[in-house]
Amino acid sequence: MSITNVVCGIDIGGTNTSIGIVDRDGSILDRMRVGTRQFDHAEAYFKQVADVIQLFFKSHSEYKLCGIGIGAPNGNFYTGNIEFAPNLKWQGVIKVTEIMQNFLPGIPVVLTNDANAAALGEKYYGSASGKKDFILITLGTGVGSGIVVNDQLVYGHDGFAGEIGHTIYDPEGRQCGCGRRGCLETYASASGMVRSAYEFLEKDKRDSLLRDIKKEEITAAHIGDAAAKGDELALNIFDYTAKILGIKLADAVAHTSPSTIYIFGGVANAGDILMKPLKRYFNEYLLTIFKDKIGLEFSGLPQNDAAVLGSAALVNHTL
Amino acid sequence: MSITNVVCGIDIGGTNTSIGIVDRDGSILDRMRVGTRQFDHAEAYFKQVADVIQLFFKSHSEYKLCGIGIGAPNGNFYTGNIEFAPNLKWQGVIKVTEIMQNFLPGIPVVLTNDANAAALGEKYYGSASGKKDFILITLGTGVGSGIVVNDQLVYGHDGFAGEIGHTIYDPEGRQCGCGRRGCLETYASASGMVRSAYEFLEKDKRDSLLRDIKKEEITAAHIGDAAAKGDELALNIFDYTAKILGIKLADAVAHTSPSTIYIFGGVANAGDILMKPLKRYFNEYLLTIFKDKIGLEFSGLPQNDAAVLGSAALVNHTL
Repeated sequence: MSITNVVCGIDIGGTNTSIGIVDRDGSILDRMRVGTRQFDHAEAYFKQVADVIQLFFKSHSEYKLCGIGIGAPNGNFYTGNIEFAPNLKWQGVIKVTEIMQNFLPGIPVVLTNDANAAALGEKYYGSASGKKDFILITLGTGVGSGIVVNDQLVYGHDGFAGEIGHTIYDPEGRQCGCGRRGCLETYASASGMVRSAYEFLEKDKRDSLLRDIKKEEITAAHIGDAAAKGDELALNIFDYTAKILGIKLADAVAHTSPSTIYIFGGVANAGDILMKPLKRYFNEYLLTIFKDKIGLEFSGLPQNDAAVLGSAALVNHTL
Repeated sequence: MSITNVVCGIDIGGTNTSIGIVDRDGSILDRMRVGTRQFDHAEAYFKQVADVIQLFFKSHSEYKLCGIGIGAPNGNFYTGNIEFAPNLKWQGVIKVTEIMQNFLPGIPVVLTNDANAAALGEKYYGSASGKKDFILITLGTGVGSGIVVNDQLVYGHDGFAGEIGHTIYDPEGRQCGCGRRGCLETYASASGMVRSAYEFLEKDKRDSLLRDIKKEEITAAHIGDAAAKGDELALNIFDYTAKILGIKLADAVAHTSPSTIYIFGGVANAGDILMKPLKRYFNEYLLTIFKDKIGLEFSGLPQNDAAVLGSAALVNHTL
């Protein structure tokens, strides 16, 4: 029997954890799932993850586990810790790689944050193949980013680089979960768009499909659906979002001059409704030397598998 | 006779060009000067620079010229060209390395922009020795920056990365020379501070030492002098400048997470009058995970020699 070398790509989300068995070429050979939220203690949670993995490989002797890559909110590549992740139940510092190596001795474990993992996924299994300088932006519950410079992920001196979601659009603007005001995330995330919807529904008295939905039930998907049907108020919300995102992405270009920025995550599902105004504002606000030179496109990763593939790329391509 | 290997570090300014003869350790062994502005054509200018260099080495056989490093506005490391530099007389694209190699065959020539050169100078001959992730900001006529990530200068996909001076503070703000509005440069450069002085003198009716100076003669140095004497209006201008710079530097940290940001250039001469409020605002606007971790200090380079040393470092440490 021939043995295939594989890695585990693990995507730790606030609610669920996806575990993918991934080969060197980025094919997902099998998938498993562990609930994240049901574990009050990180140690018990990681024990469960390790058990699931061990059980899998016991019954699949055709695969050899070569390493584990983990993408998690506030995951730090340098320390191997999840540090103060607001969307996870476990407080403080979780020594992820240390815990996992105790449960699975001899298996290398690498950790990074979810957006960095997605950027690696884009590079090795998505659209950024061969790109040496690019940025991936995730527009989901929050706004994350992974920055690649000189063919390397930018971790910075402490492992926390790439927080474009927490660059400031308006220092007197919306309250952000990070404690400051006006972060990009408070405008361009799914929940930021919902906040925009509340504001627009209040100040703009025209009719809108969004008025048919209970206020507290409005989602970014609703705004996208309404905009797709030509709802002007919903289209204005996209225009507003695109302008702010365009300005802050133009700022990002002034820092690291990527050849392409990839957009990813739930908000990106709106497709051209987001992309058309975004491209217009992005090019409008770019410094002249960068105009019409920087690609802006959607991620080439399948959305459901991106984080698992990215985490797999982390171990396949950094070890 | 023993021969010392040296390089030429050339700092091309809008008015003057400084040429330094620099050894491997960063000691400036000799200096020369060529007027920049008096040459209507780039070719004639570079011929003069090459002549001055050749003449020098003819009469100094104790030195061997190993390479030439040039720092210039809009100098591009990848192409070896100065491209559309607003502060230089010569329009369009100047093929600097090609021209210089024609005049001085066999001598390697490297070009980058002045702020990138200063960052390399800081790393090899200044305060950033051993630092793998740092940013240098020059606050002069304009605002420039050099970003170092993973021990490498960030050039980006096209050689134009590191334009923090042209990140946008206020999209409806002051008109910038780049054609857009509200760039950091329009607030934090020497001329930006003078614009602030005009605004403050207009809207704030209190007495000020700055009212004793003819409006069109006010310089950033005047504002610094007045602030040093306790002039409240001048101090308010520094507070205003520091707040905007602090916010945009906090944004820069969110991109590349440097261990230290070095401040350099004429505006930095104000010393603590700038640095005290700048540190306060910078830490106030930093994302929590970065708070109290990022150094903010003045450059360790002697101001008059920084660009020459940086250009020398470019050839001493990238060839």
